Amino acid sequence: MLFLPGNASMMISIFLTGLCFLFLGPTCCSGSRILVVPVDGSHWINMEVILRELHSRGHIMTVLRSDKSWYIPSNSSIFTSINVTMLEDEAADINYYNKMLLDVMERRRLPTFIRTFYQQYLITYMLAKGHEIMARSVSTMLDDPVFMKKMQDSKFDLILTDPALPIGVVLGSYLKLPMVFNVRWINTGEGHLTIAPSPVSYVPVSGSELHDQMDFLERTKNMLHSIYSFVEQHFFINPAYSDVFQRYFPPGTDLLSLELAADIWLVRTDFVFEFPRPTMPNVVYIGGFQCTKSGPLPVELEAFMQSSGEHGVVVMSLGSLVSALPRETTEAIAAAFAQLPQKVVWRFVGERPSSLGNNTLLVKWLPQKDLLGHPKTRAFVAHGGTNGMYEAIYHGVPVLGLPLLFDQFDNLLRLKERGAARVMEANSLTKEDFLEALKDILETPSYRNNIQRLSQLHHDQPMSPMDTAIFWIEYVIRNKGAAHLQSAGFSLPWYSYFCLDVAVLIMALTGAFVWASVLVCKVICCRSSRRKNVGGGDHTHIVS
Amino acid sequence: MLFLPGNASMMISIFLTGLCFLFLGPTCCSGSRILVVPVDGSHWINMEVILRELHSRGHIMTVLRSDKSWYIPSNSSIFTSINVTMLEDEAADINYYNKMLLDVMERRRLPTFIRTFYQQYLITYMLAKGHEIMARSVSTMLDDPVFMKKMQDSKFDLILTDPALPIGVVLGSYLKLPMVFNVRWINTGEGHLTIAPSPVSYVPVSGSELHDQMDFLERTKNMLHSIYSFVEQHFFINPAYSDVFQRYFPPGTDLLSLELAADIWLVRTDFVFEFPRPTMPNVVYIGGFQCTKSGPLPVELEAFMQSSGEHGVVVMSLGSLVSALPRETTEAIAAAFAQLPQKVVWRFVGERPSSLGNNTLLVKWLPQKDLLGHPKTRAFVAHGGTNGMYEAIYHGVPVLGLPLLFDQFDNLLRLKERGAARVMEANSLTKEDFLEALKDILETPSYRNNIQRLSQLHHDQPMSPMDTAIFWIEYVIRNKGAAHLQSAGFSLPWYSYFCLDVAVLIMALTGAFVWASVLVCKVICCRSSRRKNVGGGDHTHIVS
Repeated sequence: MLFLPGNASMMISIFLTGLCFLFLGPTCCSGSRILVVPVDGSHWINMEVILRELHSRGHIMTVLRSDKSWYIPSNSSIFTSINVTMLEDEAADINYYNKMLLDVMERRRLPTFIRTFYQQYLITYMLAKGHEIMARSVSTMLDDPVFMKKMQDSKFDLILTDPALPIGVVLGSYLKLPMVFNVRWINTGEGHLTIAPSPVSYVPVSGSELHDQMDFLERTKNMLHSIYSFVEQHFFINPAYSDVFQRYFPPGTDLLSLELAADIWLVRTDFVFEFPRPTMPNVVYIGGFQCTKSGPLPVELEAFMQSSGEHGVVVMSLGSLVSALPRETTEAIAAAFAQLPQKVVWRFVGERPSSLGNNTLLVKWLPQKDLLGHPKTRAFVAHGGTNGMYEAIYHGVPVLGLPLLFDQFDNLLRLKERGAARVMEANSLTKEDFLEALKDILETPSYRNNIQRLSQLHHDQPMSPMDTAIFWIEYVIRNKGAAHLQSAGFSLPWYSYFCLDVAVLIMALTGAFVWASVLVCKVICCRSSRRKNVGGGDHTHIVS
Repeated sequence: MLFLPGNASMMISIFLTGLCFLFLGPTCCSGSRILVVPVDGSHWINMEVILRELHSRGHIMTVLRSDKSWYIPSNSSIFTSINVTMLEDEAADINYYNKMLLDVMERRRLPTFIRTFYQQYLITYMLAKGHEIMARSVSTMLDDPVFMKKMQDSKFDLILTDPALPIGVVLGSYLKLPMVFNVRWINTGEGHLTIAPSPVSYVPVSGSELHDQMDFLERTKNMLHSIYSFVEQHFFINPAYSDVFQRYFPPGTDLLSLELAADIWLVRTDFVFEFPRPTMPNVVYIGGFQCTKSGPLPVELEAFMQSSGEHGVVVMSLGSLVSALPRETTEAIAAAFAQLPQKVVWRFVGERPSSLGNNTLLVKWLPQKDLLGHPKTRAFVAHGGTNGMYEAIYHGVPVLGLPLLFDQFDNLLRLKERGAARVMEANSLTKEDFLEALKDILETPSYRNNIQRLSQLHHDQPMSPMDTAIFWIEYVIRNKGAAHLQSAGFSLPWYSYFCLDVAVLIMALTGAFVWASVLVCKVICCRSSRRKNVGGGDHTHIVS
């Protein structure tokens, strides 16, 4: 008898399914028409990698891009693009974010309490401004009959959008298209805070820089952040769209109700990275979907890597959006690098630091995934963007974090809590501190062991995150939505959602019952005491 | 250039993975030692089908069974069994449940309000009694040094248990084994009510016979059920185990804390069947994992099916546990069947109804899945057990439900809400009503269309539910648990979980702030009015 190992039958069935797909051709939904409304910057990197996969599966895509886009090309072999007005002067200027970085770094010198609220205020200001711009853009689109006719005539099967900016949400809802989100950020924070119950006691609010095991004061801080988010949503974001909703949607529509009607939320995290927390049936985790095995490096870079010998290489990059650090910080970093036995590849734009050592190679761009997957790489100095964090997890490289903006503080905290990273404040960084932290990361085995455990867990999935993303996008196309995965709770008014009306009734009934009982007792007591008194009188009378 | 369809690359990778598995042999965790603590009756059917799959993958299993077991064999080619004392006299008597059925049916004639609470009381009584028996069994095991040494020496890699009865939970926790639940029911209701946030406003409590879109009165009813469940858990279930926990576990341990520490919950539903609701990262859906394609029928039965011609066949079965219905009910059913143009296969134990028609075949046992998957089958008359409901979904057969006990009312409601079933009260059933309902199911196309839509959605999964179950069982073995998927909220006391301590602080501070502000205002007003009075006096004085 032929011995088949234990998992043979499962694998034979997968194998046969694979063969069927290969020879019977694409699935029923290949060649679908997909409207894509992405967000610019690093978010586009996340969207493009999915579009490439969808293109290879025969889907036809139309991408809405800003005519002032930084990253999204107007000509592409994988999609058709349509120019629309999305960004306005200041928001379209990449230097705006560099200025903001310097401002945030400056304010991080303030005491924690003031700093946190200042930072939050800064984000609220940006949010309010951004949503005003978005609302004007949406209005312009809906008011443009030629554009809207083109949209309607295109008979899209699906809208795929990143709801960090809600143009896609509003447009897709107006066109009544099945909707899939490629999402991490929405409205006032991380996507889960909008779609899933998020108990304040163990779900840290975005920007709070808290983990999931909080003491009393941390829970208080989290509660304040949560209240602030609520205020932000209802007083700074919602009003921006009231005019659009009044003109184009049924009464009672707000941004939240449209977002909650999305069919599938492809969330760009997983629970190897994110703290465990409640989730919903239409939330699908695709964290690390953009990661792939490392490829060969350019010849010169490979030679540089090999020249590091047994000590290996440190890779440093602070992401795509922000390229400038204050001079004293870069000098301190360069001086610390110079004292390492390792070699260093540093993605650097700006004036060359005078303290740069011979072991450090400055490059304007680096093939990050190929470097992180290289066997000589020992550590990753990073700003903590989600993409970089997932590449570190995928390739199992420990991180020294220098968070600068947005979610980077929260992201790095997640790796730090699992013993896979150290985090430093870029504004107060000295050569000595940076060197000590870097040596710690390089020489203490636990950092490498912990990130490799995360890497092992991340790879231990029934299906790759990219295949998962594609499956669910095509699922929504095939089934014309996924209404059966959407919670009925979203259609309730807030007081019914929290059962406050029911609680009032039950308390009123209980109160009435207690009151009636007391009344009855009183009446009975009164009567019996009166009878007693009357009886006593009689008795007295008889006796007398 | 060779044209490869869109999904070719994904399929090639799956195909290659399959080949690797086939030729490189079993995964690292094949040959693991698994301790299995099942629940008897229909629950065992669910467990056994997983054990067969695990056995085929080379795992070695030890099953704890009651020496009075109804269904679990003491000799098996796929596992070793160990006899323990689990059930006691009354609970081990299958007729006990038949008696209970008649009692429940009788009480369903009562007005809804009284009936619901009577039924709930009956369940509480059973629960309290069952947990007392369980606690004694657990105590006997933990007190038995020979048994416990055997357990410890076996060096199990995992415990797989159905927590509807908590013997496995307590034993596995004591042995500190990684734990996987094969679960639908736990403590006071459906598994989700224990592990995931369950807003009362749209998550119907088990036994409430409510759906997810409730009006005010229904939400009030659900809230009362929820309060009742809380009382049941804390006053009827927890106390049963206090002695065991005091003697064998650290202070503060209760049943809930051990259950919430399970690594993976394989829940025997999915959202094709269950109403969408919040879930948790370590909850995996395997609804319908026991379903397989239909096989050929025995020759005689096949001939009977074919003899039905274009009208087809109705299949009726009321499950494995309860086989007796009152005589007048079976007579009414038989008389109604006799008037159908269809043929009928009826799983029937008891006295043959006098009104039985020639078109009806009575059988003591029937190959349910092969019958439901048969092209001649037109409808399924069922009691609403989960297994039967999933077989109806899998094969796309509309259901006429006669719920009798336990979760059957809630299960059938789920199919009814989706337009795939009708439900009747077995106690008040007349021939005319039954015939009308059956004809409706057979002749109105929407029932068949709706259940076939559910069937299509159920089959549209990235991986079969059985492969999913096996993946996650082996995942827990490979990674020695899944602590990274367990919520930190479970370790909080209830007042911290609901942030009541934080709310009190914030309200106190707000109150103090308001009080201080009022005080300051008063002082200022007082002073200014006094100064005004003094000024006024001067003025008066001058004027006078």
